[in-house]
Amino acid sequence: MNAISEDRQTRLRAVAAQVADRVEEAMRSDLASALHGCDPLLVEVLEYGLFGGGKRIRPLLAVLSSSICGRRDADVYLLAAAFEYLHVATLIHDDVIDHARNRRGREAVGRKYGMAAAILAGDWLHARSMHLVGRLTGSEGLDIFCRATGAMVDGEFLQLRYVGDAGIGEQEYFAVIARKTGSLIASTCTIGALFAGGDLGQQQAMNRYGEKVGAAFQVVDDLLDYLGNQQQTGKKVGNDFIEGKVTLPVIAAMEQAGTEERRELKALFSGDRTRSGTCDRLYDLLERLGGFQRARQTAEELVREAVAALQVFASAEEEETYALLAAIAEYILVRNK
Amino acid sequence: MNAISEDRQTRLRAVAAQVADRVEEAMRSDLASALHGCDPLLVEVLEYGLFGGGKRIRPLLAVLSSSICGRRDADVYLLAAAFEYLHVATLIHDDVIDHARNRRGREAVGRKYGMAAAILAGDWLHARSMHLVGRLTGSEGLDIFCRATGAMVDGEFLQLRYVGDAGIGEQEYFAVIARKTGSLIASTCTIGALFAGGDLGQQQAMNRYGEKVGAAFQVVDDLLDYLGNQQQTGKKVGNDFIEGKVTLPVIAAMEQAGTEERRELKALFSGDRTRSGTCDRLYDLLERLGGFQRARQTAEELVREAVAALQVFASAEEEETYALLAAIAEYILVRNK
Repeated sequence: MNAISEDRQTRLRAVAAQVADRVEEAMRSDLASALHGCDPLLVEVLEYGLFGGGKRIRPLLAVLSSSICGRRDADVYLLAAAFEYLHVATLIHDDVIDHARNRRGREAVGRKYGMAAAILAGDWLHARSMHLVGRLTGSEGLDIFCRATGAMVDGEFLQLRYVGDAGIGEQEYFAVIARKTGSLIASTCTIGALFAGGDLGQQQAMNRYGEKVGAAFQVVDDLLDYLGNQQQTGKKVGNDFIEGKVTLPVIAAMEQAGTEERRELKALFSGDRTRSGTCDRLYDLLERLGGFQRARQTAEELVREAVAALQVFASAEEEETYALLAAIAEYILVRNK
Repeated sequence: MNAISEDRQTRLRAVAAQVADRVEEAMRSDLASALHGCDPLLVEVLEYGLFGGGKRIRPLLAVLSSSICGRRDADVYLLAAAFEYLHVATLIHDDVIDHARNRRGREAVGRKYGMAAAILAGDWLHARSMHLVGRLTGSEGLDIFCRATGAMVDGEFLQLRYVGDAGIGEQEYFAVIARKTGSLIASTCTIGALFAGGDLGQQQAMNRYGEKVGAAFQVVDDLLDYLGNQQQTGKKVGNDFIEGKVTLPVIAAMEQAGTEERRELKALFSGDRTRSGTCDRLYDLLERLGGFQRARQTAEELVREAVAALQVFASAEEEETYALLAAIAEYILVRNK
């Protein structure tokens, strides 16, 4: 990383911390009013799910997307909270679906409070997020937001369809991650711009930026699943493999593999994936066939495309916000959890 | 039932069938556009969940609530579909939570397609319903709708809190059912009136009608859980007892019970509720202490209050719709499934 990037990352960390504080404040105040008179257990479950040390990347994107289109008033933190609500709702439901034990180094909501409480708390957050987006951006924003939610569900179904199938290509992979991760991040950026009164060109630019950031984020996430340190990511290394999720390192390795290696890769995915030594063997193959390297290059390319999408905002006036949005995209490549 | 009521019920059945057809048509056309390009399994799960022979009472209420405020164009069927979407979303999630095997005489969605598909399909319907309500009634309607959804979740938490506690009173019972059942039905009626441009007085009248109809509906549902025929309701008789749900027949019986009977009732709920003979013993006690009779009277009183709330619409012009809404309330007392 060069000196300019390092400078940007330092500035980004400071702004991200400020925004996270203000968004958490907005969430607490919104919950206090929305949950007035509600069952104490519902309140507890929601607080546990929401205040467990998330990175608040989606709220930060919402705030900066609004800011770069010229709107910086306090309501933006409530809008930002809506995206965190939806994000946490999907995490809670996903953890129920995956029977996950942990999330962010703590017990998953469903594990701690039971499946019923987790499904219901997710539904509550879901409804509240729609409520806020509708209130703050009207039916135009709600339309974008609900389409993104529908796409997320569709992405999960697509992913289920491809479980254990090491024969899928990049096209199928990117179709899944565009829906699963890209859609909410792109909608966050687009709605941030819409909220600020950005014109269609600005909304489209932020949408493209969000799509690329989301895709890069997921590619790196999938890489970290193999390369990350369990303590840092809170995930077991090779978790995706065990669940049969075929991600970019595998697809890229398949493209370089000879007949025998292709057969072995397919057999690893369609066989007993929990058998001792299979994950290590897969890791060796992916390394040797350049799967990790190729996935890394793809993430770098996506980040370049994300930054390029910001070009329409490259004026002296918006230099600061522009640099922060670029720094978020670049941060994806240096994160290790 | 007197002759006028019988006449009304016949007319209601005909209108209900017409509305159900048009709402199903609206759902099919909406799904075709919203699900264009989506995973075929998602499409299949949604169609299975939505077209399984529901009574379409919420859509009917939406259509009539709009109609009595003077709006009868085709868009109302799309609005009506939104309420059915949300209703089915909650049924699908509830069945996952309760590990239910069957719903409406068929396998429950979660049982047939697995928990992951069921949770995700519920989320999809949830988002789509918000989308439609926001599009058709703006953020004012969305606000009412999302509050109702939040209340439903709160009602489920309250209900979990009271499981196995035969010491709760009518107040706690009505707090649960107002949230769990009343809120969505009341919001359906209120939003129907709002959609039609009804004034605040009309919206409030429809809200009150919906609250009372919802409460009466739930009281009868709880009665049928003990008295209904399994083939007709699709439920095992005494299911609520086995799940530890303390409903109005029990609460009413407790109020009439002597010390010894109170002790026995409490012991039945806090003990092993699946033990052979316990449900029969409870049934005898509820019968003897007038629990069923008192619950029935309460339902009748709620229906009277629902019809009374319609008074503001009692003009010659709206006689037909008025009579149908009254007939829906009265139908609750004659339904047996």
